[in-house]
Amino acid sequence: MSINRQIRLKSRPIGAPTPEHFELTETPVPTAGDGEVLRRTIYLSLDPYMRGRMSDAPSYAASVGLGEVMVGHTVSEVIESRHPQFRAGDLVTSYDGWQDYRVTNGKDLRALDPKGPPISTAIGVLGMPGMTAYVGLMDIGQPKAGETVVVSAASGAVGAVVGQLAKIKGCRAVGIAGSPEKCRYVVDELGFDACLNYKTDDLVPALRAACPNGVDIYFENVGGAIFAAVLRVLNRGARIPLCGMISEYNASSNPAGPNLRPLLVQRALIKGFIVSDHQDRAPAFIQECAPLVAAGRLKFREDIVSGLENAVSAFIGLLEGRNFGKLLVQVSKDPTR
Amino acid sequence: MSINRQIRLKSRPIGAPTPEHFELTETPVPTAGDGEVLRRTIYLSLDPYMRGRMSDAPSYAASVGLGEVMVGHTVSEVIESRHPQFRAGDLVTSYDGWQDYRVTNGKDLRALDPKGPPISTAIGVLGMPGMTAYVGLMDIGQPKAGETVVVSAASGAVGAVVGQLAKIKGCRAVGIAGSPEKCRYVVDELGFDACLNYKTDDLVPALRAACPNGVDIYFENVGGAIFAAVLRVLNRGARIPLCGMISEYNASSNPAGPNLRPLLVQRALIKGFIVSDHQDRAPAFIQECAPLVAAGRLKFREDIVSGLENAVSAFIGLLEGRNFGKLLVQVSKDPTR
Repeated sequence: MSINRQIRLKSRPIGAPTPEHFELTETPVPTAGDGEVLRRTIYLSLDPYMRGRMSDAPSYAASVGLGEVMVGHTVSEVIESRHPQFRAGDLVTSYDGWQDYRVTNGKDLRALDPKGPPISTAIGVLGMPGMTAYVGLMDIGQPKAGETVVVSAASGAVGAVVGQLAKIKGCRAVGIAGSPEKCRYVVDELGFDACLNYKTDDLVPALRAACPNGVDIYFENVGGAIFAAVLRVLNRGARIPLCGMISEYNASSNPAGPNLRPLLVQRALIKGFIVSDHQDRAPAFIQECAPLVAAGRLKFREDIVSGLENAVSAFIGLLEGRNFGKLLVQVSKDPTR
Repeated sequence: MSINRQIRLKSRPIGAPTPEHFELTETPVPTAGDGEVLRRTIYLSLDPYMRGRMSDAPSYAASVGLGEVMVGHTVSEVIESRHPQFRAGDLVTSYDGWQDYRVTNGKDLRALDPKGPPISTAIGVLGMPGMTAYVGLMDIGQPKAGETVVVSAASGAVGAVVGQLAKIKGCRAVGIAGSPEKCRYVVDELGFDACLNYKTDDLVPALRAACPNGVDIYFENVGGAIFAAVLRVLNRGARIPLCGMISEYNASSNPAGPNLRPLLVQRALIKGFIVSDHQDRAPAFIQECAPLVAAGRLKFREDIVSGLENAVSAFIGLLEGRNFGKLLVQVSKDPTR
């Protein structure tokens, strides 16, 4: 294949993105200059934060410019290297975006061990989503044994890790997800104590029933009505790591939020965080979580969509909760599988 | 005077309280039994939290029961003592509520030094309101020199201390208040750098102009539209001590809140707190603030309403922002003035 397919941002959506906001272009595959590394994308991670990058509203990271390739974490195979630290066939993770090939000076690459955990975990349970769960739960949530942890988007890449870590820390873990299948998975496979279906359950009474001792930590991924419901069942001194507000990312204007009186009454804390601020926590995260993954105590589920050409529809579905597990695009063959 | 006037909660308001929700009753003045202390109220503190006590909605403190005397901090003079630690003429502070006289076993009394700061400060700048400002600003806000601190209800008992302490800590202090007179007082007398009038200023541009380096700490007393405006000008890593939401206390149902996306984008923190949880901080507060009051570096203004019979209308006005400074009711003569 001598063509590099690239998916670029064509226009900025107001509301939900549609295929018309993206453009697939084809350019020749670049070659590696002196000191450079050319690699082919194997896996592309699709994550809710990408919706923010499509907007030019101020946010925590720069927007993707119109006509630029969409950003994203990737796992790749080195095809051609003129860099002393890499050779063809090496597996690496970086931030190559929605395209088949990329060439850089290699400073952005981190080598992966083909004999280690599945290479796709570098952009999943042992990558940014897993570390997001770890930092938010441990550093802001500060779980203590016997407490109750609620997490929304519980079957997703972040939520699944939050609940499993909560269980490992001796907490009661209650998930919120969007289908009976997801709820069953969260309880039966991931070992949460309960999981509510936000599409069918009456959330406040369902939370009261699932959290008989109230809620000490709410790991917030979604915003909207779910957030408002959980605020009503907080315990005194509750902590809310604010990780994302997926349900609002497609809103054309920011919807009103919940009344915050419960924060006052319960002396509760909300703290927004962005995982990229916390790179100093990466060693602790890997040291604690890699053995848990290897031992099968930290499970993960991947929702792998085949073909870069299907990235757009998969991403649109992600924002609607249509994925089930960590959403990845298989851009080319994984040589380790 | 042999009559003890008491103001009792007659019915629970939905929306703003009116005089009909209170009842003034008269009973004989009690006498001190063995080990007991009878005192006469000199000053009664009126504070926004009392609106919450009139409601039976769950809150951070028990409701006042129907027919019970309204609660409140007081400064009193001992009239009759059969307690070894107190004698007639002693000045004390306690929590005697909206009435002329009270008798207890004395465990609830703290003696005041008639030669110390004005005795009314024991329920003002050196009492609960001042300590609320201290704990919220210091422990949650954690001001650093050069940062910008915004405080709502800036001319009130809490807000005035927040801004002055912020200045003492080397911060820029910007108040928000409800009249040109209050704003002038906040800047000219208290030494804030600026003060916005929420009734006439377009808050977001006015905040941007008054806070050219953004907002690092927002000490939240009022909720509502002011809160929503400040959220739009937060700096990265901003801290919001959530002390009160006065503007919402009279709402018959909790209004929606602001969209919380800025907390995520700016990695900001909101933390609700109740000063009574932080009694361990009282020594540090007094040690730091009493000398500042004595030196005239921590100024205060009292809005003293004469006569217990006027407590109800004064309290109703407090919830509407009609007071100017710490609202006190002079129930009987202050022997030190």
